[in-house]
Amino acid sequence: MELFEGGVTAPKGFCAAACAAGIKYQGRKDLALLCSQVPAQAAATFTSNVVKAAPVLWDRRIVREQNGPVRAVVINSGIANACTGKEGLEICAAEAAAAAAALGASPDEILTASTGVIGMQIPMDKITAGIAALVPALADTPQAGTAAAEAIMTTDTVRKEIAARTVIGGKEVTIGAMTKGSGMIHPNMCTMLAFITTDAAITKEMLQKALSADVEDTYNMISVDGDTSTNDTCMLLANGLAGNPVIDAEGEDFDAFCEALRAVNTYLARRMAGDGEGATALFEMKVTGAGTKAQAKTIARSVVSSSLVKTAIAGHDANWGRILCAMGYSGASFDPEKVDLWFESAAGKLQIVKDGSAAPYSEEEATKILSESEVTAIADLKEGEESAAAWGCDLTYDYVKINADYRS
Amino acid sequence: MELFEGGVTAPKGFCAAACAAGIKYQGRKDLALLCSQVPAQAAATFTSNVVKAAPVLWDRRIVREQNGPVRAVVINSGIANACTGKEGLEICAAEAAAAAAALGASPDEILTASTGVIGMQIPMDKITAGIAALVPALADTPQAGTAAAEAIMTTDTVRKEIAARTVIGGKEVTIGAMTKGSGMIHPNMCTMLAFITTDAAITKEMLQKALSADVEDTYNMISVDGDTSTNDTCMLLANGLAGNPVIDAEGEDFDAFCEALRAVNTYLARRMAGDGEGATALFEMKVTGAGTKAQAKTIARSVVSSSLVKTAIAGHDANWGRILCAMGYSGASFDPEKVDLWFESAAGKLQIVKDGSAAPYSEEEATKILSESEVTAIADLKEGEESAAAWGCDLTYDYVKINADYRS
Repeated sequence: MELFEGGVTAPKGFCAAACAAGIKYQGRKDLALLCSQVPAQAAATFTSNVVKAAPVLWDRRIVREQNGPVRAVVINSGIANACTGKEGLEICAAEAAAAAAALGASPDEILTASTGVIGMQIPMDKITAGIAALVPALADTPQAGTAAAEAIMTTDTVRKEIAARTVIGGKEVTIGAMTKGSGMIHPNMCTMLAFITTDAAITKEMLQKALSADVEDTYNMISVDGDTSTNDTCMLLANGLAGNPVIDAEGEDFDAFCEALRAVNTYLARRMAGDGEGATALFEMKVTGAGTKAQAKTIARSVVSSSLVKTAIAGHDANWGRILCAMGYSGASFDPEKVDLWFESAAGKLQIVKDGSAAPYSEEEATKILSESEVTAIADLKEGEESAAAWGCDLTYDYVKINADYRS
Repeated sequence: MELFEGGVTAPKGFCAAACAAGIKYQGRKDLALLCSQVPAQAAATFTSNVVKAAPVLWDRRIVREQNGPVRAVVINSGIANACTGKEGLEICAAEAAAAAAALGASPDEILTASTGVIGMQIPMDKITAGIAALVPALADTPQAGTAAAEAIMTTDTVRKEIAARTVIGGKEVTIGAMTKGSGMIHPNMCTMLAFITTDAAITKEMLQKALSADVEDTYNMISVDGDTSTNDTCMLLANGLAGNPVIDAEGEDFDAFCEALRAVNTYLARRMAGDGEGATALFEMKVTGAGTKAQAKTIARSVVSSSLVKTAIAGHDANWGRILCAMGYSGASFDPEKVDLWFESAAGKLQIVKDGSAAPYSEEEATKILSESEVTAIADLKEGEESAAAWGCDLTYDYVKINADYRS
């Protein structure tokens, strides 16, 4: 299995296109169309927020209630189509109808996704004109995938795409993906928006099983600001063109697929956390020596979600008391007097806490380690063999600046 | 019942003193002694954080495991005495011993509290010298109460004290209180540090009952940054000097006492939220028309804890989608399509959302309302009669500045 530069068009039979439709932003790409040349199985996870955006409601019906395959996804940035009532759902239906007509498919084979400001209505004429322009532009090139990855960005500063290839049943299988997410990132079931394509042949049931298990350890372990979005959607489309024996049960083939999926999603989850709004550093929290995996995950996620830890990372300050404090209010139980803590980065590794109290360490060396663009804290609970990691970012002036002015 | 300017020395028989003991800060008051001239009943609530500071462990033993009265509280700022292991507990014992010797009491009648940096040890000689200086300075004047309220401040920009008087059984009963708290404020069982005194005659059991019920609707409903401290402590001392018939059961007298306690704690909870680190505005979230009180509280607290809502308030931006989003991920269920939302302040009241979608409103008027120093959002769920309020503050550059540099 290897990761390589690529995106949603890397697997066989997937094409994409993007354009500036003028939905809210002016003069930048804001509409993408992702399409499989043959019908694809779809799996997805959605936000746990009670307030669900219209595209989440639309997609959930298609992925969870219908068993048929899908053909394409229409994605816009700028307006989230959330808190838009009946009109919001009508816009999803109209989007799907427009794409279906142009592609010779049924509206029930078209998924939709939106990201941006909550509460505004999407101007339907802009979408219709955009889709008409996109269909003839569809291409299976890396450039087309990149254009789509750019069109779905909002406050993201870098596009996020990756691909992986592996061999399943003697056939090369590829997974490609793109995500966006920079603010309102604290996924619960899934991240902001993630689109994963693969040419693997796999049943819908096994596809959903692979995705549901994977997001628990990848996208669900990142946090930028503790706000679980109304639009979180992670979808995985499989069109079978790799020609491998269909994966319809657990076993070696399923494991190989899951390994590649994990590599893709871990890469993108880290990219998303590191590109958190205003962030200057990716902050990784590893919990080791835990009694259970759930305990390790709860503690790791609590630490990367703490505003006080995040500001300390912004200040390159080894303020470890805030890490122990955030571990303590996580809801997981552990013995604080057994905890050892290290900081680690490209600049070195340093033990800061031994048995719950300060270890003798050099503040100067700690500051050096914490001044890198990727910083890890490792807490050893010394009570078992389980471990977990979560990813977040520092909290800076720029997060405040971006969000105090976001709508204007 | 009326509130009046005053603090912990307002009730009969309580005296206080404060000094600059040089524990960590230089040239400012950092040590306070609060004392009842006669033994007092004590009730308290403590942090739910698994990582509990040494003074929390010390006090919990005295308040929960012993049934005897208490005489005094020693409080320091600068160092939290948390994550300090066995040595931290020895410091509590030594503090109590020093105060007990000087006051002619038993160490088991002395409570302790600390606030400041986690992980450092308190220099015991500074505390011993400070206590020796404080005992002869004890006074029951308002000035002495104010000095104590100043000594317990850390990043607080204003001291927080208040008093209330009511009549119980024909006697005037007074409650006085001081609190501190500005960062690491997301109480769960209690707030950062709150000290409440009263001359009411009341049994220990009824005192604890009154306090436990009250903090659920006051201190437990504020959030500055989502971080539940290791040191959260709220204590209530009652010395009986008002001479009212002892309150030993529910009834009219207990209700009068609870009413005054509620007024004191609501006042201080709001002051604490409004003085959140870096805050320029107090933000109040009211939920009305809820089916249950628990639902209303969960939703209100989620909204004041949202970083995206807090930055919108900082930007005077009527970004109501973030409020609905935070209501949606609170964990409480409700019908988003029924929600009405208003903003209110000294500048007016304006409906922003009707039935879950945007109401026609003037952005200019909304910005004017949101530019006041106290801002309220009111969400009506339209499903019942219950309501709740939570208090927070805006999230500004200064929160980041204060916390990226706090230790230095």
